[in-house]
Amino acid sequence: MYSFENLPAMPLTIEGAALLHQMMRVKWPQWRALSAGERDEIVRDASAALATMESEGSAAFSMLGHKGDIMLVHFRKDFTVLNQVELALAKLRIWDYLEQTSSYLSVVELGLYESSEKVYTSLAEKGIERYSFEWNEAIEETLVRQRTAMHPRLYPEIPGHPFICFYPMDRRRGEQRNWYQVPMPERQRQMQDHGEIGRRYAGKVRQIISGSIGLDDWEWGVDLFADDPVIFKKLIYEMRFDEVSAVYALFGTFYLGRRVPGAEIGTLLEV
Amino acid sequence: MYSFENLPAMPLTIEGAALLHQMMRVKWPQWRALSAGERDEIVRDASAALATMESEGSAAFSMLGHKGDIMLVHFRKDFTVLNQVELALAKLRIWDYLEQTSSYLSVVELGLYESSEKVYTSLAEKGIERYSFEWNEAIEETLVRQRTAMHPRLYPEIPGHPFICFYPMDRRRGEQRNWYQVPMPERQRQMQDHGEIGRRYAGKVRQIISGSIGLDDWEWGVDLFADDPVIFKKLIYEMRFDEVSAVYALFGTFYLGRRVPGAEIGTLLEV
Amino acid sequence: MYSFENLPAMPLTIEGAALLHQMMRVKWPQWRALSAGERDEIVRDASAALATMESEGSAAFSMLGHKGDIMLVHFRKDFTVLNQVELALAKLRIWDYLEQTSSYLSVVELGLYESSEKVYTSLAEKGIERYSFEWNEAIEETLVRQRTAMHPRLYPEIPGHPFICFYPMDRRRGEQRNWYQVPMPERQRQMQDHGEIGRRYAGKVRQIISGSIGLDDWEWGVDLFADDPVIFKKLIYEMRFDEVSAVYALFGTFYLGRRVPGAEIGTLLEV
Amino acid sequence: MYSFENLPAMPLTIEGAALLHQMMRVKWPQWRALSAGERDEIVRDASAALATMESEGSAAFSMLGHKGDIMLVHFRKDFTVLNQVELALAKLRIWDYLEQTSSYLSVVELGLYESSEKVYTSLAEKGIERYSFEWNEAIEETLVRQRTAMHPRLYPEIPGHPFICFYPMDRRRGEQRNWYQVPMPERQRQMQDHGEIGRRYAGKVRQIISGSIGLDDWEWGVDLFADDPVIFKKLIYEMRFDEVSAVYALFGTFYLGRRVPGAEIGTLLEV
Amino acid sequence: MYSFENLPAMPLTIEGAALLHQMMRVKWPQWRALSAGERDEIVRDASAALATMESEGSAAFSMLGHKGDIMLVHFRKDFTVLNQVELALAKLRIWDYLEQTSSYLSVVELGLYESSEKVYTSLAEKGIERYSFEWNEAIEETLVRQRTAMHPRLYPEIPGHPFICFYPMDRRRGEQRNWYQVPMPERQRQMQDHGEIGRRYAGKVRQIISGSIGLDDWEWGVDLFADDPVIFKKLIYEMRFDEVSAVYALFGTFYLGRRVPGAEIGTLLEV
Repeated sequence: MYSFENLPAMPLTIEGAALLHQMMRVKWPQWRALSAGERDEIVRDASAALATMESEGSAAFSMLGHKGDIMLVHFRKDFTVLNQVELALAKLRIWDYLEQTSSYLSVVELGLYESSEKVYTSLAEKGIERYSFEWNEAIEETLVRQRTAMHPRLYPEIPGHPFICFYPMDRRRGEQRNWYQVPMPERQRQMQDHGEIGRRYAGKVRQIISGSIGLDDWEWGVDLFADDPVIFKKLIYEMRFDEVSAVYALFGTFYLGRRVPGAEIGTLLEV
Repeated sequence: MYSFENLPAMPLTIEGAALLHQMMRVKWPQWRALSAGERDEIVRDASAALATMESEGSAAFSMLGHKGDIMLVHFRKDFTVLNQVELALAKLRIWDYLEQTSSYLSVVELGLYESSEKVYTSLAEKGIERYSFEWNEAIEETLVRQRTAMHPRLYPEIPGHPFICFYPMDRRRGEQRNWYQVPMPERQRQMQDHGEIGRRYAGKVRQIISGSIGLDDWEWGVDLFADDPVIFKKLIYEMRFDEVSAVYALFGTFYLGRRVPGAEIGTLLEV
Repeated sequence: MYSFENLPAMPLTIEGAALLHQMMRVKWPQWRALSAGERDEIVRDASAALATMESEGSAAFSMLGHKGDIMLVHFRKDFTVLNQVELALAKLRIWDYLEQTSSYLSVVELGLYESSEKVYTSLAEKGIERYSFEWNEAIEETLVRQRTAMHPRLYPEIPGHPFICFYPMDRRRGEQRNWYQVPMPERQRQMQDHGEIGRRYAGKVRQIISGSIGLDDWEWGVDLFADDPVIFKKLIYEMRFDEVSAVYALFGTFYLGRRVPGAEIGTLLEV
Repeated sequence: MYSFENLPAMPLTIEGAALLHQMMRVKWPQWRALSAGERDEIVRDASAALATMESEGSAAFSMLGHKGDIMLVHFRKDFTVLNQVELALAKLRIWDYLEQTSSYLSVVELGLYESSEKVYTSLAEKGIERYSFEWNEAIEETLVRQRTAMHPRLYPEIPGHPFICFYPMDRRRGEQRNWYQVPMPERQRQMQDHGEIGRRYAGKVRQIISGSIGLDDWEWGVDLFADDPVIFKKLIYEMRFDEVSAVYALFGTFYLGRRVPGAEIGTLLEV
Repeated sequence: MYSFENLPAMPLTIEGAALLHQMMRVKWPQWRALSAGERDEIVRDASAALATMESEGSAAFSMLGHKGDIMLVHFRKDFTVLNQVELALAKLRIWDYLEQTSSYLSVVELGLYESSEKVYTSLAEKGIERYSFEWNEAIEETLVRQRTAMHPRLYPEIPGHPFICFYPMDRRRGEQRNWYQVPMPERQRQMQDHGEIGRRYAGKVRQIISGSIGLDDWEWGVDLFADDPVIFKKLIYEMRFDEVSAVYALFGTFYLGRRVPGAEIGTLLEV
């Protein structure tokens, strides 16, 4: 026999692209102190490099507010490549005129609440012991199947909308309200309600969720893309009233940016 | 049949001008190191630029305390224009002598608690399913009507009072006291009581509320304008005792400024 | 009929001098790099300016610890004058060799718990409706009378003791313990007990309370003046056990300074 | 007679290598401003020094994200030697081009929950009074025996995996949920469940736990080593659902690095 | 008649030496940029000054980790002298090459829990009214007697052990667990249990407690001295399980240092 309490509490997840968000401030006095010729040359090199990176999964944004002037977002196949991107950027002369104010490291993640319940239950019904060789094989098979089916969502292109909203978040682990102690069916139900709000905004907002437990200081990163930032407000405000957000969501810093083609990064550096 | 629990929890909101507050500190040693002629020239350019911006919805303030020396407040029609304002400011030579210490991004917001209840109830009574095509149409119609009626309040001019008080705030989502889980009629009642205090200060304080969920790190921004900062203290202190503030309001940093015409920004830079 | 619940929850307050505390660190390398002659000249100007400001309600302190080297405290008639003081200081050459590490903005405040209860009750007994014209007139009359009676305490001179202790504080608005939801008679009782401790230190410590709701990031600022900092510890430690402090007081940063005549500010800048 | 309540609440621990993690950012403008020859010379000296340190228990990592560019990890026999490592590094010219952004100080720790219960119980059964000479001798004997048996785990080599994940953590001491007030058998049971998850990742992740109470700002440091950072996420996410982590774990900043041989540190400094 | 509730809640304390801890980071690039001759001269002056200060109650430490390179600890007779020490240090040329990262201000404090209970009870039994002239006289007499008896502990020499651990701490004032509302006999019992752990480490650790309410941002500072930092960990870990620490202790930043004779400060500045 089995009961729900004996099933694993963690939903299965599948992971895809490794993500790095880099927030940067321009060092205006040093930049303006250069001759026009030097600035042109530096911009030319930077534009070319960013245009190439763009074709490899990067995007540049003009940030609003003092949290930074430029945000670079990189989607790559793994963290080794992401590290190479960072080292390549540091070689550009423009790097001397930028100050990194923040960054965020994560990996595209799809949480398989529904599949998890099915496969956990099915294995339990067959009497297969948790974490046994057979159980592990079955789980791995599920993951492989899902990874194949979801491949485009695991390795997405950066949506082309004019505006981005990025923020990290946690699920609350309070003394009385603790997401990680909510039974899985209840978590699944709340996540489903949460997802329904998102689906109602389907045509207006594109959303990419990345996991960052063990990678950065919050548990998840959220990227939203839309034509108008007011839509971000409406979506997140509406979500704030659903149970999983109202009770269990803790939010980090919000970053807002306007998309700029890598080749036109110079428009953010005009003096 | 319907009951209140089935109505949407979120009040309808309408949005207007996109807002940016910029707090800046003067780099006095670098500034004083310039020749009087250079300073004059830089001030002349900055004054002219700020005077123009003023006519487009900006205002300058002399900040009190170490949080900054100058605060610029920009009200614009959308975030694209706001981003252009930022890029235009960065082109001014004065920008090399200012250090941004903080900023805040938001959008003028009117919360329609009363209308929301009416329209939600009316639609429920007619048996129109929530989020159906018909329901969405009716809601959109309400929003359009309200946006038209409230247009002057959605796109306000910056009041001309000598003093400004700006601060961001959240509604508490504590483990026991959670605004987003309070039933809507109760929230409506508390907001009404809260508004009554404001109305008693009508002749003395002008207030502009902006929403910033998904735009910046707090949920709302509050701008108050008055002839004397002591009125800010009296109003906010009195409000602190009403239920919605006493229990559910969390406050960020407070910024206090004295209005200065853009053309006279040089008076803040005399050495 | 009336009951206590219907009386306003906020105690009446009267306000006096506008206060600014400025904490500053000396930029030693830049300062020492000057020639002795330049330093002398800069000190001479600064001493003269501070001596004049002293006669207008300012005081200078040598700070202990790394939070700053010099603290300037300004008591002025209003915030416009305070803003002028800041602009005047920025014009001094010494300003290039000081870095503002913190500041605090507030207004001398006397909380009239006892009078409030009396006048609120008396007006209720007379059946005068709250916030009616007549009610407002009666309240205003009380305030005017108190302001006149308390004038010296509203516009105090900065006490001449050798040591100052300054710190900002809040009243707790916790999920279970919330000062702003404690009934007024109970708040009044606790404040009275609290005041009794202060009165026992009457000969040893001078205390000036200023309010900063809407002006700075905490609700109140507290200035204590004594001959020996150990007295600050004894007083505040003893108060920590009374109910209003034990349960409802939240403290910010503590600043400790030793009084230095403005004309002798040079003694803090010797190299 | 004895009862569990009378046994010491603290598990015995044994300590080994003294650990220092150093996070550093490259000062790119100053570094790039050097001539190629100077950079080569500085890199040559740094590479040689790091290669030697590597043979003495150090390792270098290329950090991902803005928290730093380079992380050095030092395992040494004690804190005196660790202090010498710091002083030796400061003598290198490369030190002028690095800014320490963070660090962490700890000591390899093995918590002996099981042995503690056994020896505490056995001594109690023999009627030996706690903290008596005899009791202390018996405890010391246990510690000596364990230290000998565990020597390789107390003084481990830094695993050679391509990726490191380092983070500090606390056990919660909340008002309602307090690890330090949980009875020892219950703590032992939770730690055992926790350890079982780790064991299931045995082939994929190497883990080194260090204690830092009294040494740094958190209670423990955790170093994980693996071939792919996604494994860090999977392991820590799975652990988050076990009771000791869900309820009692508080996490600090997460640092992610890619291993680089000390002799090849120059690859992180190419311009 | 009297009951325990009517006795003062605050334990009597006596105060001794005024303490200042200064944490500093070396500005390596600026320091290394000097000629060897200049560095020698600056070190010579600094060594001489520190050697003299050492004879007056100061000590220097080589800090471990990025929180600083050098920690100076000053024990003086009062805060006026402490302020003079700070001003004297600022006059040294070495000061230009050090950046203060932190500091802590406090006064050696002995809490007289046992005496307090005795004298409070005895006075109550005699029917002497609290805070009456007679009562104050009796209390003062107790304090004077204790100050004389404890003089060496109030004005201690800085112990000569190779390692120091310094950290500030608070007693919790939570919404449910509030040290300042625990009845005095219970606090006395908990402090006694706490002290017993300390006494078991008597030969290995020297401890100096200083109070900092009203002086700095935490309520107490703790200095521990030992031959090996692992002992700090063992002591503080063991204490964490006693009730007063488990429930009521909140800890600030921990600083670890290795003692260096003032005359040898140059060994920390070799390049």
